Amino acid sequence: MLDRIRIVLVNTSHPGNIGSAARAMKTMGLSDLVVVDPECFPHPKAQEMASGAGDLVEQAKIVYSLDEAIADCHMVIGASARSRAIPWPLQTPREMAEDVAALPEETQIALLFGRERSGLTNEELHRCHKHVNIPANPDYSSLNLAASVQVMAYELRMASLAYPKGRNKWDYPFATSEELEHFYTHLEMTMTDIGFHDPSNPRQLMTRLRRLFNRARVDRMEMNILRGILTAVQAQKPSS
Amino acid sequence: MLDRIRIVLVNTSHPGNIGSAARAMKTMGLSDLVVVDPECFPHPKAQEMASGAGDLVEQAKIVYSLDEAIADCHMVIGASARSRAIPWPLQTPREMAEDVAALPEETQIALLFGRERSGLTNEELHRCHKHVNIPANPDYSSLNLAASVQVMAYELRMASLAYPKGRNKWDYPFATSEELEHFYTHLEMTMTDIGFHDPSNPRQLMTRLRRLFNRARVDRMEMNILRGILTAVQAQKPSS
Repeated sequence: MLDRIRIVLVNTSHPGNIGSAARAMKTMGLSDLVVVDPECFPHPKAQEMASGAGDLVEQAKIVYSLDEAIADCHMVIGASARSRAIPWPLQTPREMAEDVAALPEETQIALLFGRERSGLTNEELHRCHKHVNIPANPDYSSLNLAASVQVMAYELRMASLAYPKGRNKWDYPFATSEELEHFYTHLEMTMTDIGFHDPSNPRQLMTRLRRLFNRARVDRMEMNILRGILTAVQAQKPSS
Repeated sequence: MLDRIRIVLVNTSHPGNIGSAARAMKTMGLSDLVVVDPECFPHPKAQEMASGAGDLVEQAKIVYSLDEAIADCHMVIGASARSRAIPWPLQTPREMAEDVAALPEETQIALLFGRERSGLTNEELHRCHKHVNIPANPDYSSLNLAASVQVMAYELRMASLAYPKGRNKWDYPFATSEELEHFYTHLEMTMTDIGFHDPSNPRQLMTRLRRLFNRARVDRMEMNILRGILTAVQAQKPSS
């Protein structure tokens, strides 16, 4: 299970934090590290803070968009502070880890961590199937990046020790993040075509639809059906 | 419950680690920090690494022996690597935290963390009622000090949220660490008096007895009984 979990650090400022996060990962048996648009990486400070986890830092993949980091992932989880304008499914690290342990074995998982000061943007959080929040002291909830990674990785390790194999079976693989994005683009176009959606006045329509489909975790067969429906709807519009 | 938990850092080398540990504590709602014989503390680096937990660093108590740090504690838990010559009761952080949450409300708890490189000595570990070990990656188990504190504090917080009040009741308070030490001294003297124990060839006698009584967690009434027995035994010896 731990091999299927990717840690994605988004737009990290300090290279030392990338190193410390790598160390936290390795102590818990995680090894897949992707860094999205880091401010200053590679950097010797990252190696220094990684201590014995320098191999993870060396093997870390650097990409320049979140899309690239998660394109092949079937389950995307964002580390998030508590309250959001639109509530998203929110779990404790333990609940998250137990759910991850229950996923079918071929599921690729990404766990996203945001910027040191500001976390993940709303747009990034809306790419997630769910959010995970460490129930910290409300008077001082500022865990540093590596400390958050340590807690999440610890819970994932604990769950993997309890349930070494994916507990659940499913008939089709889940849609990847990339397939989902194509679907959302298609959906938005279709809703625009039929006059239901005005991209210049989007309100929260796409956000709410993302939340709905992400929450359901769509499999590839279902995705094909949905895309088929959209195509059929588009075919309905009077040729002008 | 979190107010009754003291974090004791023994002989920490780097002041920055004391600061990071304080930050980890505060994010989880812990505040009682005692530093035993630190190499270099107070130090501005500790404040710097503490970030918003500078108050904990300022209020940290510095003492020069472990005895002082835990004298009033009823339950002493040592963070330990896995294997020891004489096995001690060993728990995962989760088991530890759930047990702590079950302790009667008036119980004062100490959680000991050793040196960055070498951890706690055997003698320090033998002062503990039990040991706690993070089930880390066997190929790389080197969590840094603050990361260990973060995981333990996280589990303690999770348990305190699940069980806000001590679940168990007891008729007498448990013996404090100081009372236990007096008892062990008395026991060793008595065993020497009766020719059962040779302090110049101690083997593992006291270690095994410590393990036995620490495991049982002796209450104050039981302690009085045991001390009474020892005194009665000593009174038996023929006056010479």
